[in-house]
Amino acid sequence: MVSFGDVTGGRGFGAPMRFEGSVYDCEVVGKVPTSLNGAFVRVGGEWFYPPMKPDDSPFNADGYVSMFRFRNGIVDYTGRWVRTPRFEADRKAGRQLYGYYRNPFTDDPSVRDPSRPNLRTVSNTNTFAFDGKLFTLKEDGLPIRIDPKTLETVGSYNFGGQWTGETFTAHPKLDPETGEMIAFGYEASGLASNDIVFQFFDKAGKKKREVRFKAPYVAMLHDIAITEKHILIPVCGYTASVERLRQGGVHWHWDSKLPSYVGILPRDGEAKDVRWFKGPESSTVHTFNARTVGNKVIMEAPIGTSNPFPFFPSIDGGPYNPLGGRCFLRRQTFDLNSKSDGFTDEVVEGTDMTGLGRIDDRYTGRDYRYAYCGFADREKPFDEAKGGPGLKGRVTNSYGRWDLSTNRLATYFAGDAHALQEGCFAPKSPTAPEGDGYLIGVASNYREMRSELVIIDAAQMQEVARVIMPFRLSSQVHGNWFADKQLAFA
Amino acid sequence: MVSFGDVTGGRGFGAPMRFEGSVYDCEVVGKVPTSLNGAFVRVGGEWFYPPMKPDDSPFNADGYVSMFRFRNGIVDYTGRWVRTPRFEADRKAGRQLYGYYRNPFTDDPSVRDPSRPNLRTVSNTNTFAFDGKLFTLKEDGLPIRIDPKTLETVGSYNFGGQWTGETFTAHPKLDPETGEMIAFGYEASGLASNDIVFQFFDKAGKKKREVRFKAPYVAMLHDIAITEKHILIPVCGYTASVERLRQGGVHWHWDSKLPSYVGILPRDGEAKDVRWFKGPESSTVHTFNARTVGNKVIMEAPIGTSNPFPFFPSIDGGPYNPLGGRCFLRRQTFDLNSKSDGFTDEVVEGTDMTGLGRIDDRYTGRDYRYAYCGFADREKPFDEAKGGPGLKGRVTNSYGRWDLSTNRLATYFAGDAHALQEGCFAPKSPTAPEGDGYLIGVASNYREMRSELVIIDAAQMQEVARVIMPFRLSSQVHGNWFADKQLAFA
Repeated sequence: MVSFGDVTGGRGFGAPMRFEGSVYDCEVVGKVPTSLNGAFVRVGGEWFYPPMKPDDSPFNADGYVSMFRFRNGIVDYTGRWVRTPRFEADRKAGRQLYGYYRNPFTDDPSVRDPSRPNLRTVSNTNTFAFDGKLFTLKEDGLPIRIDPKTLETVGSYNFGGQWTGETFTAHPKLDPETGEMIAFGYEASGLASNDIVFQFFDKAGKKKREVRFKAPYVAMLHDIAITEKHILIPVCGYTASVERLRQGGVHWHWDSKLPSYVGILPRDGEAKDVRWFKGPESSTVHTFNARTVGNKVIMEAPIGTSNPFPFFPSIDGGPYNPLGGRCFLRRQTFDLNSKSDGFTDEVVEGTDMTGLGRIDDRYTGRDYRYAYCGFADREKPFDEAKGGPGLKGRVTNSYGRWDLSTNRLATYFAGDAHALQEGCFAPKSPTAPEGDGYLIGVASNYREMRSELVIIDAAQMQEVARVIMPFRLSSQVHGNWFADKQLAFA
Repeated sequence: MVSFGDVTGGRGFGAPMRFEGSVYDCEVVGKVPTSLNGAFVRVGGEWFYPPMKPDDSPFNADGYVSMFRFRNGIVDYTGRWVRTPRFEADRKAGRQLYGYYRNPFTDDPSVRDPSRPNLRTVSNTNTFAFDGKLFTLKEDGLPIRIDPKTLETVGSYNFGGQWTGETFTAHPKLDPETGEMIAFGYEASGLASNDIVFQFFDKAGKKKREVRFKAPYVAMLHDIAITEKHILIPVCGYTASVERLRQGGVHWHWDSKLPSYVGILPRDGEAKDVRWFKGPESSTVHTFNARTVGNKVIMEAPIGTSNPFPFFPSIDGGPYNPLGGRCFLRRQTFDLNSKSDGFTDEVVEGTDMTGLGRIDDRYTGRDYRYAYCGFADREKPFDEAKGGPGLKGRVTNSYGRWDLSTNRLATYFAGDAHALQEGCFAPKSPTAPEGDGYLIGVASNYREMRSELVIIDAAQMQEVARVIMPFRLSSQVHGNWFADKQLAFA
């Protein structure tokens, strides 16, 4: 018998939505483009049983995967739990067996095994398609394979035994021209290890090689960027140690004294070829994109100045600074000819944004023009009476499109009682020019207490259709558009 | 692509909830009795496609069946569409093919067939278990058989070819001692016919006999009552004719000039034995119970004075009187020795109530003590800011238990932002005394925009547990408790 109380973000819009379901032929305002055939597949966290520790990170909530399936202008919705081994163990026990985020020492004795931390992944961070297969991902474990027809969980996946290491990133990269997958794991040889392993697969799913090296310190390595020639690995001030984990807290602490780094590995390089560039305290959780121009490697990312997540404490016990996670679109340029470990860093445009940056993925690693990100447009009204705790004044009510050729921002506003989750870009056709397509993302309508999928013409930054859901959707971390040719949807 | 606009009762709490889904191990406040093992299975209407006629009756919405499954104190929820032939035809066409409530003349030509009106039933009125099978019912068609494990639709059911007639009531009666089923159909020989057929089945599902006779006029015969010896058939002022249906409106018109009737048929009688007692304009849509005492037949029911449903117009075009459906618990006594066609009619207790009366079904047809019904307790506050249209001042915020031995009312109040749908009684055990059990029903929480299942100790009229749903539930017509021994639930 489940009792939540207020431990999971309270009631109102953040109240638990712990169900599985389908909506057929969803209600639509506007007109869904009939050329959009595929699915927007998103994943996030939803507690099946309440967290064992009331102050735990939301990153520790059970994975919940959902899909908006587009066919000839008709949209169907399905949402399901990601049935990880952990989910099944909890269900069998009828209670929460797992303790703090990525701290197996805090687990119930019946499942406690710090030597196999990846068995407790909730797989709640990103969705990914490769080699005709659909996955949910979380960086503390292996991918969970999902049936794209039903969203039923197939099981853990190690690429037919080819994947080495305990973990697999939530942000593998696909080279849009070669189809190659560049993926990595960190804490790759066990809990709080600083081992990184990069692994390279051809487009047919065959592993070509791997490179192992060590991070400057045990850090959260959430996202990378690739160019045609290089891989960029941002390292920022979260750190962990087995000793601290044994003491029974969450995995990460923010250490303001730690420098940030960006590692650069040539795509055909070995461990000895990794070069670490060093910067001041900052947080690069996600990237937009990067490119190699001559001897320079250039990356854009939404970058903050300090700890972006209040549920991961400062290592010195100090108070949380809410401005630390405020991101700006920054460009960092690394000169491979330089003998210095420094780099140049500039703000491209002065509007602050979320840390969730997206591009037209067909331009991954190449020269590109458009960066997409959610942001809080303060000039637009938000109905604060409906906002709930924490939303006042900084609601992500808009998507922005930053034009890197002009440094100008074009915006889309979702509505005066709406907060946007991360959107993604879907091209109008495989051969459409960059940015000629749709931004797709979920808006929370606080007034009607329901979610809405917004579909925006990305060239005009104007809404063309809105799918009206009959309920609130679980909060999403990442979501992606997969075209019919990528996955065999129903 | 579905577009609703505001045609189905607007947005807010009445907005469409057109999805299928399951909640496992539902969130609970309080403690669900571990002795309650079975399921509360309810059905109501939900438009899959918007109605063809914006002013249509909500009775014409697609059937939606849902179940709260109780096992050892754990509650699981499942909700599914009733996949009637009509639902499947609409889905195949991708649009609404069916016109007004019970008027096949208004259907799309592709499905129009006034000779088979029962093919267009939406089966949205009641749930029923007999002979180990679960059904949804609506009085304009045959039962739809439902799998109690999954709520998947098995299909139309005619009792293995035994059922004769085009229609089957939403309120068949089971004799609690013999297990006999007494069921009937009206408009039994076609659209707007005044033929009634009663059919009697033994507890093993074998048909014993049938009786055919005619109603005094073509009327809505929604519910009956039985005693150990008699069947009571209330007839009230709704009427229909094929001529009016051809003109293209809804099925029923209210005719204030028509008398009400109660027909009394001996359970072992034939058509010639039916006796019609006559009264003034009134509306007996549902009954509580009845009994035979010597030569008298006595029935209690929630009875109104005139047209209870605003979507069925007056035949004279006059305005709708909202007081017409205001019901009181009345007792009607029929003297079989009398030569008169009159009867006595008294108000048992002066609190007005909904028209949805329930009892401890183990006392059907017998002397009984308790009548249960929802009512609007005006002394209890309702948060009008959250109420939405039509709710102000007359919210069914309470369940009442009328003690017929004392004529006193005991009440349960659901909350200051809550409206209750019909509850039902579940005994603590098969041998528990009358009223020793639970009232179970769905509350709409307007403040949190979600539904809640309330479980009330019926002896104390005090809540013992509340199941918190993450969403609003479709509006219910009727719901029933089925114990594990009645149906093979999962």
